[in-house]
Amino acid sequence: MTMITHAMLNGHLSRAEALSLHVSDLSILRGYGIFDFFLFLKGQPLFLEDYLDRFYRSAKLLHLDIPFSREAFAAQILQLIEANGQQEGSIRLLLTGGYSADGYTPSEPNVLILQYPLPAQAWDTTATLKLITHRHLRELPEIKTTNYITGISLLPELKKHGADDLLYLDGEWIRESVRSNFFLVLEGDRVVTPAQKILLGVTRKQVLHLARQRYTVEEREVHVSEIAKAKEAFFTSSTKGIFPVIQIDGRPVGDGKPGPVSKQLQQDFIAHLEAYLQEKLTVTAS
Amino acid sequence: MTMITHAMLNGHLSRAEALSLHVSDLSILRGYGIFDFFLFLKGQPLFLEDYLDRFYRSAKLLHLDIPFSREAFAAQILQLIEANGQQEGSIRLLLTGGYSADGYTPSEPNVLILQYPLPAQAWDTTATLKLITHRHLRELPEIKTTNYITGISLLPELKKHGADDLLYLDGEWIRESVRSNFFLVLEGDRVVTPAQKILLGVTRKQVLHLARQRYTVEEREVHVSEIAKAKEAFFTSSTKGIFPVIQIDGRPVGDGKPGPVSKQLQQDFIAHLEAYLQEKLTVTAS
Repeated sequence: MTMITHAMLNGHLSRAEALSLHVSDLSILRGYGIFDFFLFLKGQPLFLEDYLDRFYRSAKLLHLDIPFSREAFAAQILQLIEANGQQEGSIRLLLTGGYSADGYTPSEPNVLILQYPLPAQAWDTTATLKLITHRHLRELPEIKTTNYITGISLLPELKKHGADDLLYLDGEWIRESVRSNFFLVLEGDRVVTPAQKILLGVTRKQVLHLARQRYTVEEREVHVSEIAKAKEAFFTSSTKGIFPVIQIDGRPVGDGKPGPVSKQLQQDFIAHLEAYLQEKLTVTAS
Repeated sequence: MTMITHAMLNGHLSRAEALSLHVSDLSILRGYGIFDFFLFLKGQPLFLEDYLDRFYRSAKLLHLDIPFSREAFAAQILQLIEANGQQEGSIRLLLTGGYSADGYTPSEPNVLILQYPLPAQAWDTTATLKLITHRHLRELPEIKTTNYITGISLLPELKKHGADDLLYLDGEWIRESVRSNFFLVLEGDRVVTPAQKILLGVTRKQVLHLARQRYTVEEREVHVSEIAKAKEAFFTSSTKGIFPVIQIDGRPVGDGKPGPVSKQLQQDFIAHLEAYLQEKLTVTAS
């Protein structure tokens, strides 16, 4: 995940290796910032409009003004990708509270666009995940803030349990993972996922759209006791696509192997990506 | 709160105006950092041992290693104060998750010591506060993380209500404010303050010590309904000392004026500071 040569700071191309923020920035002093993260293939950002929707919405909810129109900002992203000369990779958008005079009150935001290689685990259909549950409701869960302090502080706990990631429980209700949305597959191939007090993932949205074409979909409160009855479970995330969850708190989910619904949706998602990309490239070429 | 000329980064004196962190630092990308903040008078940091206790404890709870012994780190603080040539001011200690290779896993922390002027409101015995309550339990409340996203995002809400600060309620239990501890004075001059799921303030500790010499002190769960019965309320914080709270959610606390217990404790606290300083200066001179 080394940053690629160029990055963008407040609309200007900069050398990534020298891209720094003064320590008076509110992201450093007060954790006041939002971000988003998406992939691009053949020079085309995937589902860019959805990510821009979320980024602008997150900014608004934190009373931060992005000093560019959506069109200008999207153009900056494409300009950066072109400057770096890579056909595929990933992009992080980052907006901070800016350089604060009193170390607390937001000022002019700093807007960054950072480019990285394609994550190694992107759309890896062989990977599986083991989770441990943890009682936690993300603070301001609908906003993609930079606050990951609980998830990161529990990395040693994951290692101790031989687990890959956390599943956050809000009391007895399932919410989400640190960086992923969570789905269960119940009897009758019902695809079930929480809908409230979570970050609404862009991949989650695509997968719900695909799942509705084959299965019954339920967006609702999901109780922790439903895990024991589930045939399958999976994660969705922008960097990973769909990842089967085979174990939670040391107990297998279903038969402890990736199930047919997860595998079908992985195939559907890759086909959906290809179709999306084909359409974008056709539009760009015409 | 402009930073003073020099600052310290990883044990080295640096120009504050140029003191930056590369954008791969986890404080920027993931809000992963801790800090502390204290004042100094006549060149002497106030209650330094208490702040160092907390800073090292916060670091440990987030699995971050401060790469200096307490003695070496305290010496750096004094070295910075001397380099800046000011007799009074304030100091921020800051420890981040460091430059992360994958944008998520902590690495070698960055350690910063930043110096500012004395805050304008320090020990101002004429100031009073109006609060509004807000349902929120700080994430990892015992750790002084840099995460202030809820408090800062509600600044427009404070303005709308003509309020100065928030009082966080965990369900029906009073916890703390964004940057201060909270006390009630109940019938019989009982001084009451929450003891759990809060940041244990250094000024809170000093004030409890002083209050025990004059009043009955109760450290316990405090129910929101007790506000209506309170004769007085006040905040304690490192930058402000003791500040009377005269209004909560539009209703006066007691008779809506700073009360005798708050005023007495303000006097006691200033006398305590002077005695502390006198002792430190005597030790330093001998």
